Amino acid sequence: MNRGDEVGPGRPWVLDAEDIRAFALGASFLGCGGGGDPYIDRLLLESELKKGGTIRLVAVEDVPDEWQAASVGAAGAPTVLLERFPNIDAAEIALRKLEAHLGRKLDAILAGESGGINATLPLILALRTGLPLIDCDGMGRAFPELHMVTFHIYGHSASPLVFVDDHGDSVIIECADNRRIEQLGRQVVIGMHGGTQGTLYPLSGAAIKHSAVRDTLTLALEIGKLITRVRNDDNPAARIVEGLNAEVAPDRHAAELCAGKIIDVRRETTGGFARGYAIIAGDKAPEDRFYVHFQNEHLLATGPRGVLAMVPDLIVMLDRETGVPITAETMRYGQRIKLVGLSVPPMMRTPEALAVFGPRAFSLEHDYLPLEELREGAS
Amino acid sequence: MNRGDEVGPGRPWVLDAEDIRAFALGASFLGCGGGGDPYIDRLLLESELKKGGTIRLVAVEDVPDEWQAASVGAAGAPTVLLERFPNIDAAEIALRKLEAHLGRKLDAILAGESGGINATLPLILALRTGLPLIDCDGMGRAFPELHMVTFHIYGHSASPLVFVDDHGDSVIIECADNRRIEQLGRQVVIGMHGGTQGTLYPLSGAAIKHSAVRDTLTLALEIGKLITRVRNDDNPAARIVEGLNAEVAPDRHAAELCAGKIIDVRRETTGGFARGYAIIAGDKAPEDRFYVHFQNEHLLATGPRGVLAMVPDLIVMLDRETGVPITAETMRYGQRIKLVGLSVPPMMRTPEALAVFGPRAFSLEHDYLPLEELREGAS
Repeated sequence: MNRGDEVGPGRPWVLDAEDIRAFALGASFLGCGGGGDPYIDRLLLESELKKGGTIRLVAVEDVPDEWQAASVGAAGAPTVLLERFPNIDAAEIALRKLEAHLGRKLDAILAGESGGINATLPLILALRTGLPLIDCDGMGRAFPELHMVTFHIYGHSASPLVFVDDHGDSVIIECADNRRIEQLGRQVVIGMHGGTQGTLYPLSGAAIKHSAVRDTLTLALEIGKLITRVRNDDNPAARIVEGLNAEVAPDRHAAELCAGKIIDVRRETTGGFARGYAIIAGDKAPEDRFYVHFQNEHLLATGPRGVLAMVPDLIVMLDRETGVPITAETMRYGQRIKLVGLSVPPMMRTPEALAVFGPRAFSLEHDYLPLEELREGAS
Repeated sequence: MNRGDEVGPGRPWVLDAEDIRAFALGASFLGCGGGGDPYIDRLLLESELKKGGTIRLVAVEDVPDEWQAASVGAAGAPTVLLERFPNIDAAEIALRKLEAHLGRKLDAILAGESGGINATLPLILALRTGLPLIDCDGMGRAFPELHMVTFHIYGHSASPLVFVDDHGDSVIIECADNRRIEQLGRQVVIGMHGGTQGTLYPLSGAAIKHSAVRDTLTLALEIGKLITRVRNDDNPAARIVEGLNAEVAPDRHAAELCAGKIIDVRRETTGGFARGYAIIAGDKAPEDRFYVHFQNEHLLATGPRGVLAMVPDLIVMLDRETGVPITAETMRYGQRIKLVGLSVPPMMRTPEALAVFGPRAFSLEHDYLPLEELREGAS
């Protein structure tokens, strides 16, 4: 299904069993190693679709300016969210609490991030509530912190934010500063035992048009379909890169970064995040070492000749045999992998954007260089 | 001024400069070592009174059942609150946020605790807002945790709770379980850098009649006047005990617990609390050692012949020369002190109450024994 052809403004987005599988795969790709287990996403979405109902997907350009929408998603370390089944009731309570606090009904919902389980949750909530779902997000991928979204970068408030935990207990946070809402919100996530459902960034239709990363939910579906198509090929990662450049994301730049075997993974869950790095022994020269650093999501890939890719560009680890994305928390010794990079849209590479989710925002000692320039230098 | 005679339902509670000084002293006594510096309380209250206005104090028995009131106070470790001047604007924002969340105006406010700075803040807020102040609290003293109040013990919810920090940023918490609100709220206190202004336990007039500790604000004033009267006597601590038993709190039991010199104080600020103990060398036999354990407030006093007093009974450390209460965070080597105990009302000694703020609730290895029985055993 192609959004441009078959799904108009608020038209039904009908997903069959294969589409759901593909969507979860594509969301896992955009998750850049973070965002949780796509298998759980798929089960949740299948189970919700069985109850009936359809998703009404709205393209950003078709959203009325005066609409009131809000982004939805889970917050917490993927290592914790992996062990705790997503609580859809809590997510729905969060929406209702936000409506009560705002004193008006929401006209639509949107994804805060299009990577991992937070890409799938909005679909499930759209099915449950009947609210239209806007085809966009605030990251074009997954990021670990609440202010790392284009909504924040382009001047919109995350407040009021509502978090609801598995007991139905809730917290509403209002901060003048979105960075402060990340600090305070992270404490609440820890207080909610490391994982919570939330809704934040209440945005008007006009604000969404101004600040959202467009068409990212349909992009997830198309990437997932591409992976499904090529997974039995000899070299699925190469086919994925070709397909991204040729048809799925022709306005982006996709590239293979390295191929090898994971020989070590260091990780700790600290301050509400999963942090660490993987070490990969290269295929071409076994003494070559590649490093992938992550904070929930992959942030930086380096090799013997220097940096291969860095945030905000997407760094995705694929299983070498199947092309299926590997999440950071399931990386382990002995896995044969290929590392793939995908550039982000221009609005995510402005100085304002890089100040929020560029390498230095993660305390990495690098100035941002676009994926395509790094590849040119390396080749 | 005696409440019974001069202050009727909602009648003005006129406090002159001496009364303010006395009230702060009495609140410091009820603070049991916690609750912050009474000097700051006094300055704040004086400064607010200079702006004009009067406090309208209402006795619990005169509160209409249908009133909607809420308790107010600061939350945080006294060691932190000592360094950060209380932010009255934040406290007022918290009240307004609670009203917006409840969808109705408050009819009155009350003190969450009658010890320390949290006894004074409601007076300041009553002056600022013009809201009547109810002569009661939920502790009859100070306690370190949010659920350690008679409102919780007798079945009322702390939710919605509103915390507002020095930036005006706010958090509204709703939990089915008041113990959970303490856990989650404590994380928020830490996220607000260790100290915050709050309002919680929205209570109807009927609920206040059912669950509040009565007349504790006027008790603070009377205790303060007693201390002021006897501070130039030879043995002010003994005079204070006599005065409490004879006239100020004749339905309670007051006793001198020990006299000596502080020879060591161990303290740490951890998990949002100030915790530790003081060691006192006895006056009668210098080899006698007395210990006072605290978590914000003094919890347990022991001597060479065993336990002298334990929570919820009040343990108050007085300067031996002046009878002025010494807060836990200002205890230091070399201070000559007397330790005084004061029993709490029967509603604070029920099995339900002891389960919440008896010795075992603080992980102390003692079953509760009333102050007066311990004294009988010791003499």
